[in-house]
Amino acid sequence: MVIAIIGGDLRAVYLGKLLNDDGHEVKYFGFDNKYIDNTKDDLEEIIDRSQIVIGPLLCSNDNIYLSTPLYSENIELKKVFDLMNKKQIFIAGKITEPIIEYTSLKEIESVDLLKREELTILNAIPTAEGAIQLAMEKMPKTLHASNVLVMGFGRIGKILSKMLWGIGANVYVSARKIYDLAYIKSYGYNPILMEKLIDNISGMDIIFNTVPSLVLDKDVLEKVNKSSIIIDLASKPGGVDFKEADKLDIKTYHALALPGKSAPLTAAHYIKQSIYNILLERGYE
Amino acid sequence: MVIAIIGGDLRAVYLGKLLNDDGHEVKYFGFDNKYIDNTKDDLEEIIDRSQIVIGPLLCSNDNIYLSTPLYSENIELKKVFDLMNKKQIFIAGKITEPIIEYTSLKEIESVDLLKREELTILNAIPTAEGAIQLAMEKMPKTLHASNVLVMGFGRIGKILSKMLWGIGANVYVSARKIYDLAYIKSYGYNPILMEKLIDNISGMDIIFNTVPSLVLDKDVLEKVNKSSIIIDLASKPGGVDFKEADKLDIKTYHALALPGKSAPLTAAHYIKQSIYNILLERGYE
Amino acid sequence: MVIAIIGGDLRAVYLGKLLNDDGHEVKYFGFDNKYIDNTKDDLEEIIDRSQIVIGPLLCSNDNIYLSTPLYSENIELKKVFDLMNKKQIFIAGKITEPIIEYTSLKEIESVDLLKREELTILNAIPTAEGAIQLAMEKMPKTLHASNVLVMGFGRIGKILSKMLWGIGANVYVSARKIYDLAYIKSYGYNPILMEKLIDNISGMDIIFNTVPSLVLDKDVLEKVNKSSIIIDLASKPGGVDFKEADKLDIKTYHALALPGKSAPLTAAHYIKQSIYNILLERGYE
Amino acid sequence: MVIAIIGGDLRAVYLGKLLNDDGHEVKYFGFDNKYIDNTKDDLEEIIDRSQIVIGPLLCSNDNIYLSTPLYSENIELKKVFDLMNKKQIFIAGKITEPIIEYTSLKEIESVDLLKREELTILNAIPTAEGAIQLAMEKMPKTLHASNVLVMGFGRIGKILSKMLWGIGANVYVSARKIYDLAYIKSYGYNPILMEKLIDNISGMDIIFNTVPSLVLDKDVLEKVNKSSIIIDLASKPGGVDFKEADKLDIKTYHALALPGKSAPLTAAHYIKQSIYNILLERGYE
Repeated sequence: MVIAIIGGDLRAVYLGKLLNDDGHEVKYFGFDNKYIDNTKDDLEEIIDRSQIVIGPLLCSNDNIYLSTPLYSENIELKKVFDLMNKKQIFIAGKITEPIIEYTSLKEIESVDLLKREELTILNAIPTAEGAIQLAMEKMPKTLHASNVLVMGFGRIGKILSKMLWGIGANVYVSARKIYDLAYIKSYGYNPILMEKLIDNISGMDIIFNTVPSLVLDKDVLEKVNKSSIIIDLASKPGGVDFKEADKLDIKTYHALALPGKSAPLTAAHYIKQSIYNILLERGYE
Repeated sequence: MVIAIIGGDLRAVYLGKLLNDDGHEVKYFGFDNKYIDNTKDDLEEIIDRSQIVIGPLLCSNDNIYLSTPLYSENIELKKVFDLMNKKQIFIAGKITEPIIEYTSLKEIESVDLLKREELTILNAIPTAEGAIQLAMEKMPKTLHASNVLVMGFGRIGKILSKMLWGIGANVYVSARKIYDLAYIKSYGYNPILMEKLIDNISGMDIIFNTVPSLVLDKDVLEKVNKSSIIIDLASKPGGVDFKEADKLDIKTYHALALPGKSAPLTAAHYIKQSIYNILLERGYE
Repeated sequence: MVIAIIGGDLRAVYLGKLLNDDGHEVKYFGFDNKYIDNTKDDLEEIIDRSQIVIGPLLCSNDNIYLSTPLYSENIELKKVFDLMNKKQIFIAGKITEPIIEYTSLKEIESVDLLKREELTILNAIPTAEGAIQLAMEKMPKTLHASNVLVMGFGRIGKILSKMLWGIGANVYVSARKIYDLAYIKSYGYNPILMEKLIDNISGMDIIFNTVPSLVLDKDVLEKVNKSSIIIDLASKPGGVDFKEADKLDIKTYHALALPGKSAPLTAAHYIKQSIYNILLERGYE
Repeated sequence: MVIAIIGGDLRAVYLGKLLNDDGHEVKYFGFDNKYIDNTKDDLEEIIDRSQIVIGPLLCSNDNIYLSTPLYSENIELKKVFDLMNKKQIFIAGKITEPIIEYTSLKEIESVDLLKREELTILNAIPTAEGAIQLAMEKMPKTLHASNVLVMGFGRIGKILSKMLWGIGANVYVSARKIYDLAYIKSYGYNPILMEKLIDNISGMDIIFNTVPSLVLDKDVLEKVNKSSIIIDLASKPGGVDFKEADKLDIKTYHALALPGKSAPLTAAHYIKQSIYNILLERGYE
């Protein structure tokens, strides 16, 4: 197949290489020369020749331009869709309502990668490793034998707890649902009911939050040990009252988009698998 | 509190001891003397004095008599309910429609322990250990370095896989949903799509089934290695065509009610916790 | 090659099958018909035709007869050696001084399998699994979440601790050397200095001993919880004062020769590998 | 007790805090003000008032000056010893022959921390975490599901393998001794005989070396995948032909003194424990 990759971060660069290794013809657009040597290419020709158009994992920040962190110029979203035809598929991440409206109008099928459950689960792996790397960089202690709290037992909480346990940390996991606490216990971690968090938090050396609501508020932060570190993995605005933490002199890190930063090659590999699943479901081989 | 325990297996015996250790007054009925010394007790008086009546984990096999495997006589269900009053709670497992109808008629609150999600999750722990014990007893090989297949990634599949991996087995897990395969991969096991089971099953030394539908049918069984062992953990009729397996000379074990057999004390401990949760939700302390 | 297997337990039976699968011609002697169909064979002919003679893993209990637990008759050790010639190798386990003297006299090379370090390490795997199986059979609790003490951090202690940790037990390991305690800590178990054992033993649900000297004497046993179970894996006389434990009503199990009982096929596989190493070192291919 | 800490890196700073937390009076010398506020202190007075003098973990680079990476001036070793008396103990790491000669002359007892086996084992924990952090920073892949080779199965190899396995890597360990390979297999890693390294190395994503001799020479490096990363943990000159690796365009990192860099607080904690052991052995409480 001929595949166009338009914009995106290092994951897009690696994705192209992986698709190329599998025998596909890959056309890039939206990358400066130091990333991809595509100076002579022209967007119209690239899209025209491709069967699939792949956009960024976070398609757009403003619904007007594609997200192109590795490109010194702008690419209008509409321009891409105007060049596409009805037989082509547009695959990207976080395709918002306004974008869907426009692609519908143009009768172009768009597929949102972030709605692929297998991808969001696998993305938790590089996210967890990125969080562990950050913790190792920021803590004067080893994770081994430290008291580590993971808040939330969803996709990221599950794999992060397992890795921390594998390194030798004393793992505590807080959750709201009684059945999650049962799972946490069965996996060998120490379960903490979210409501009792405030009674247990002072002994923690490091706190990872995965819950996308304000769980570490003023009252809880006041109980946190001053030498603790908080790493918030929840998407903006996160689960920490950062201002309050600052006042209390507690170090916080809001770590976002870790897969693209910590392990873009692995992340690209998972995206590739998901794209193949998407194509398979649509009858491609 | 005064608590009546009427019928049940070894778990009921241990449950009474644990409740007693916590300071409750426990009255037993439905156990022969070699299990509990209760010869002088009489059912009417016991129920009359109790605030809670606890029945067996599998309440009844026929909706007529309580399940009393440790008692040489019978106890009619209706007789128990006729002796109870509206202020008392009846707690037992697998409370069927006919039983609910009768307790409703008598205006007695009944609580089904098997509908408590935290208990069914924790029950997976003694189930998994019981399955591992059985495998160790029946296999001439160690689990360590063996190829082990776990079919299904629900409550039992999850904890069983983890324990097998912890012992050092090469763990394969089959599941139907793509997102379960992603989880399986993230936990470090080898994922097998259920539809591709037939292509992968021949290399397995032992197969644990947790899926409650006919997954190991004639076609699949024909691919199973003759020296393999199959342990079926799914409730009756299970997930294996046992007759066909017999013809093919493959050893199968349908292992049911493992928590009560392999670790009745631990199982009783989890039941106790669940009873306390039930009472807490109803305003008891 | 042509290989004679004379006496031994189930491991010898499986060993022959594995050697046969690898293309060797295997001759058995010293097994009743229900184990091996060898009625017409005669010892003289078998030894005469073989290049290697393999005896039992525990060669002899009395230095007079071969150990033949699966045979209703006796085989004199001397008879075997008298039938052998100088080009043949005798491979067995626990070859004692009197046996070595006699083989030296006959100028027959004998190799003691129990002096092969790789085999004794690998044998720890089925030993550990056998110990875990026994614990699961005898305890009314799950190993998961139990307090488990492993005494000694040698070959068996190391792999047993790891498996117990993998199942989800709270693992305590006692050792005499400070550097072993450092390793124990680094692996994530709770280290206990042997001298402080007496202060820590009361909280244990199960105790595995691997130390071949009297570590669980009267003073220590008096601190052991009555509902605990002790599994002694040290060779006779073991590390437990069994009489005293009996008086104190503590359940003890002296579990010996576990590899042959719990996983004879895996044990045979490791023996085969060791035999191949022995032959390789002597220039055979 | 009154304890002098003279020179050293961040571990010395943390060590002082930990000793202080335990109730000891700690006097620092050899740190700039931004690390420790000790402007008014004078070396003679500090040593005079102390019972124990603690030097750097790597005492000296040249046997003339103490190692003082956090100090802008120099401290002569001889000056320290000249100020000490026979009742005081000098504790530091890597105390070389010339230093021992001088302290003997002065009849001062000196204790080398790096000869304390419990400390070198525990030091492997922050070393392993530091190596994992570096790997995470330098690799575009996750460690999870990567092929990872650990060369050598000593103190660092053991704990590093376990942590990598805990994160979900496919762990290969190479060793020279057959019995180490047996241990490696029993722990669930893939054993590689050192002599067969060259046949197995091409599939590795990352290689950690712990062997202090030239194991990754030109011949082996030529087989290494160009996208692999090599992290050498062996002390100088290390186990890698760095020049050759450079020519072959393979990325290498010689990571030394990791405990002080990656987790100085944990490292200080282990040093403190070792110092207490040293004092206990000498009759202090």
